[in-house]
Amino acid sequence: MGFSNIMDSNRFSGESTLDPATDALIEARARVLGPGYRLFYDTPVHLVRGRGSHLFDVDGVRYLDAYNNVPGVGHAHPAVTEAVTRALSTLNTHTRYLHEEIVRYSRRLLATMPEHLDRVTYACTGSEANDLALRIAHRYTGRRGVVVTADAYHGNTAAVTAISPSNGDADTPTDHVRRVPAPDTYRENGTAGARFAADVRAAIADLDAAGVGVGAFIVDTVFSSDGIYTDADLVGEAVGAVHAAGGLFIADEVQPGFARTGESMWGFGRHGVQPDLVTLGKPMGNGVPISAVVARSVVSDSFSSDIPYFNTCGGTPMSIAAASAVLDVIEDEKLMTNAADVGDALRAGIAEVAGSSPMIGDVRGVGLYTGVEVVAPGTTDGDRAAARTLVNRLRDRQVLISICGRDGNVLKIRPPLVFSLSDVDWFCTEFADACAHIG
Amino acid sequence: MGFSNIMDSNRFSGESTLDPATDALIEARARVLGPGYRLFYDTPVHLVRGRGSHLFDVDGVRYLDAYNNVPGVGHAHPAVTEAVTRALSTLNTHTRYLHEEIVRYSRRLLATMPEHLDRVTYACTGSEANDLALRIAHRYTGRRGVVVTADAYHGNTAAVTAISPSNGDADTPTDHVRRVPAPDTYRENGTAGARFAADVRAAIADLDAAGVGVGAFIVDTVFSSDGIYTDADLVGEAVGAVHAAGGLFIADEVQPGFARTGESMWGFGRHGVQPDLVTLGKPMGNGVPISAVVARSVVSDSFSSDIPYFNTCGGTPMSIAAASAVLDVIEDEKLMTNAADVGDALRAGIAEVAGSSPMIGDVRGVGLYTGVEVVAPGTTDGDRAAARTLVNRLRDRQVLISICGRDGNVLKIRPPLVFSLSDVDWFCTEFADACAHIG
Repeated sequence: MGFSNIMDSNRFSGESTLDPATDALIEARARVLGPGYRLFYDTPVHLVRGRGSHLFDVDGVRYLDAYNNVPGVGHAHPAVTEAVTRALSTLNTHTRYLHEEIVRYSRRLLATMPEHLDRVTYACTGSEANDLALRIAHRYTGRRGVVVTADAYHGNTAAVTAISPSNGDADTPTDHVRRVPAPDTYRENGTAGARFAADVRAAIADLDAAGVGVGAFIVDTVFSSDGIYTDADLVGEAVGAVHAAGGLFIADEVQPGFARTGESMWGFGRHGVQPDLVTLGKPMGNGVPISAVVARSVVSDSFSSDIPYFNTCGGTPMSIAAASAVLDVIEDEKLMTNAADVGDALRAGIAEVAGSSPMIGDVRGVGLYTGVEVVAPGTTDGDRAAARTLVNRLRDRQVLISICGRDGNVLKIRPPLVFSLSDVDWFCTEFADACAHIG
Repeated sequence: MGFSNIMDSNRFSGESTLDPATDALIEARARVLGPGYRLFYDTPVHLVRGRGSHLFDVDGVRYLDAYNNVPGVGHAHPAVTEAVTRALSTLNTHTRYLHEEIVRYSRRLLATMPEHLDRVTYACTGSEANDLALRIAHRYTGRRGVVVTADAYHGNTAAVTAISPSNGDADTPTDHVRRVPAPDTYRENGTAGARFAADVRAAIADLDAAGVGVGAFIVDTVFSSDGIYTDADLVGEAVGAVHAAGGLFIADEVQPGFARTGESMWGFGRHGVQPDLVTLGKPMGNGVPISAVVARSVVSDSFSSDIPYFNTCGGTPMSIAAASAVLDVIEDEKLMTNAADVGDALRAGIAEVAGSSPMIGDVRGVGLYTGVEVVAPGTTDGDRAAARTLVNRLRDRQVLISICGRDGNVLKIRPPLVFSLSDVDWFCTEFADACAHIG
């Protein structure tokens, strides 16, 4: 098998020997879903139940979920279930009728953002949110050009696939897209932000020279797919260059948003920048599909005054109920503080293991987003094979993580925000053991 | 105000005098959601509860829902609520882990389709499904050209907006799109299908001449947005021409699908045609976002073997649970038969009113999809203003419908599938009264 893209780095290859029941399920699945549906791990996991940061397979075995950010407030959180049940048994229509909850939630959401971000538009997925944000930026600036990071992932519609190089070569036109390597704080220590800004400037110049012009610069402010770069103040200079050229800055908060960084609700704040558009997704509804574009009204209204946009299931009572419950739980259970404290403890534990494991080149992160560089010992060269082995050894020890980064060598550790100190202990014990058996 | 597009034909204009509480809610809503969020009716409806085919406003007033197809099995159906509650309180992850329910549901869904349609890919919205179907068709045929009906609506992503002329002039490039007027069975009696096929042939020739070529022909087989044309055998000849030119036929079943026609689960069957791709949406989860692309494996695998497509919330246990419950209810409550019987009764009742109302030019439909032409008496000219007045008079009588068609003059009557004979009686009583007070 080949690895056509980052997303496939942790892909089930079909080469392992599995038990007959798992084999049969995989075969049945392939017959109806086809080859597009990838599974994680050399030995795929057959899950039947989840609770908090733990998952359980069909044999009742307990797993530590150190990967899933969609259930931000934890698997099967009763507050979310209850809110959704209440909405579904009461009313679940669309936004062409008046409903109070969408207004209440929108005010609450906007109150977590800088004051100039005063409009929200709902959709169902992060892909839809980014697709819409691009259209708005194009309309407002009159320019189609988009600057993205070299291994970005922003979603799966045709328009958004074009700005998601991590998916491999897009099947949609990319003549309006320029890719710049993300600020690699490990290999470009101290110079990453400046080099990044210089590349963004060059991309803008190139778009200008091509007669396209820069409409938008879109960044996931923790650079999840690029390899997880979490230093503060990495993007300010680049955003300044984009604004000076008349382009808009879109902060894609699908990954860093909703308290994951442990410092604020949104990742962009760490870079001292003011986005023109902010896109939200995955953890917003804890697994209930809801996403949003938040914008400056002058930007968003320029689009929506002229161009109809209606998303049937966007902002329905059910999805708003789920999203409201998520905000409640983040506040009630102090999950932002938890993300900060537990994330620090997790990185301290991993760093301790790294001290005696030469294949760990770097441990970095913020809150509950952690990246670990797996490298050829004595170098900074990513070791994709070793990273893949490590992820699979952890899976065999019932600890679930995955991989990201250009070279597919960065461990992606991104648990639900309810991850606890005992979960950290569990993780580090198995991580140490897995490293000892490889490196 | 102007009417920039069909979707706006039934838009709240802000010109009516409303009670202070409604005024305040509309103002609060506009401050956070902006001008992109349209409301229905001169006097918007503030809903708080729904059950079956009835809705209730904030004052406890009961409305007859003769418009909403998303809650196909009825508002707040307990079977759907229960299934979703069970899934959310158990497990709701994604398709990179094994799960049995998605395999079971997929088999059940595919069993309702012709045998050659043997692959399903899940997404969250009909827009995402159509966006993906276009990418698959483009990949398989190597051609970007798309033929659509002149007032089609297929969704809201950038790529799909380009093939949705009912949204007004798209803000995305449409050089690869050719529009053909839908077969107007009212004004082209007997010749609609042949004329439609001739136009499709001309569109294919035009795409060929432009060096683009036809990749796909996409049709909502009840032509909802174009004006609701429900005769059988309208598209076979056109599909034949597309197939002969090497293009694919995409049946957009978001509107006619899931038993609405009362004859079969899918609208395309009425035209004796074999789609290469079928897209599903809205009623699939009764308001829980789930959609799908169903395809011939040779078509779908050509895409998914090479190009990664992952939809985080597509095909999750929660959305599959909702979709399974919808199929259960359609079977258990015999909703296909109900759609046929009640739909016939509804059209008979409307036709009776039409006999004494010269502004009703045509009553047509199939199952629970009905279109009524409002025309200038003695002509076949659509009367948009009269249609709008009629829709608002019905709303004042607590009967909810809307408008569609090129001229915004076709009443769109598309209730939940649980619509009953007493609902028909309610509808026809108020319809007769509303017509008598206008025409």
